[in-house]
Amino acid sequence: MLAAARTAFAERGFDGATIRAIASSAGVDPALVHHYFGSKDALFLAAVEAPADPAELVPEILAVPQDQLGAAVVRMALRVWDGPARPGGLALLRSAVNNEWTAKLLREFLVSRVLRKVVATLGFDPDVRAARASLVASQLIGMVMARYVLRLEPLASASPESIVAAIGPTVQRYLTGDVDLPHA
Amino acid sequence: MLAAARTAFAERGFDGATIRAIASSAGVDPALVHHYFGSKDALFLAAVEAPADPAELVPEILAVPQDQLGAAVVRMALRVWDGPARPGGLALLRSAVNNEWTAKLLREFLVSRVLRKVVATLGFDPDVRAARASLVASQLIGMVMARYVLRLEPLASASPESIVAAIGPTVQRYLTGDVDLPHA
Repeated sequence: MLAAARTAFAERGFDGATIRAIASSAGVDPALVHHYFGSKDALFLAAVEAPADPAELVPEILAVPQDQLGAAVVRMALRVWDGPARPGGLALLRSAVNNEWTAKLLREFLVSRVLRKVVATLGFDPDVRAARASLVASQLIGMVMARYVLRLEPLASASPESIVAAIGPTVQRYLTGDVDLPHA
Repeated sequence: MLAAARTAFAERGFDGATIRAIASSAGVDPALVHHYFGSKDALFLAAVEAPADPAELVPEILAVPQDQLGAAVVRMALRVWDGPARPGGLALLRSAVNNEWTAKLLREFLVSRVLRKVVATLGFDPDVRAARASLVASQLIGMVMARYVLRLEPLASASPESIVAAIGPTVQRYLTGDVDLPHA
């Protein structure tokens, strides 16, 4: 069931994949998928072996004033990665770098399940939202790679709040600031 | 010889490793290492299977006025990754994510061979240089991961110049701007 879910999410994205189609390709009844996982969200998180559930994290980020969103996003990312989710996060990152399908799943996870929900509150057009979300993702993924994978100093040993102070303004600019957006 | 070089560079860093010690642990004469590789730089690039030689790239970056360094760094990174070096770069990145030793080598490559040379021209104290270089690295690695590994849209299909316009100001701020630096 999880293998079928991975295939469907990687091929069709979170929105395009349906529990009905996943159940059908796994040769089981959709009711069984619902019974085991409860929701498409939960099935997706299980399929990517997500180390954290964004449904618990996003509301906390969105509780801050809009001009502090950048800091809140960086602070949350560091709290997740400095906590017990780190091994799972590293495993997901490793797998995404080695495997195009997991890369698609991680992209769906980051964009559809986390960043899109944060950016959606800002009231831009969909194209602008996607562009801003991809810039935010570029800084966050790089922060994680530099701090936890390459262990670049002083980022690797720095206090979370000092990193929030350095990188938060970048994420804030990407989210709400005056930025020339990437386009074809 | 390359295996001995990888071990030495990963354990001692680029500056700490010596051709003499590498030759000794490979059981060969240092003159042979010089004969094959010519310099410690070239040996290092061969050891990490570097897809590009920073000695050719850094002078071009440094030719621009200081307030355009951020754009020049992003433009160069995109030119290297959009060119024939991409498969080699992806292989190095993959290997770094999977293997702590290659991560150390990639860190040395990025920091000692590329970013340190760019940041050294700006006249900060060594601690400040390291902090600024690690922030620049965080944004560049994330840009590469988002565009080439995760293929996040619109970053994946965007024109290089539109990405320079979006991300250049971030790198400029990390290099020369007013930024709270990460610290323990």
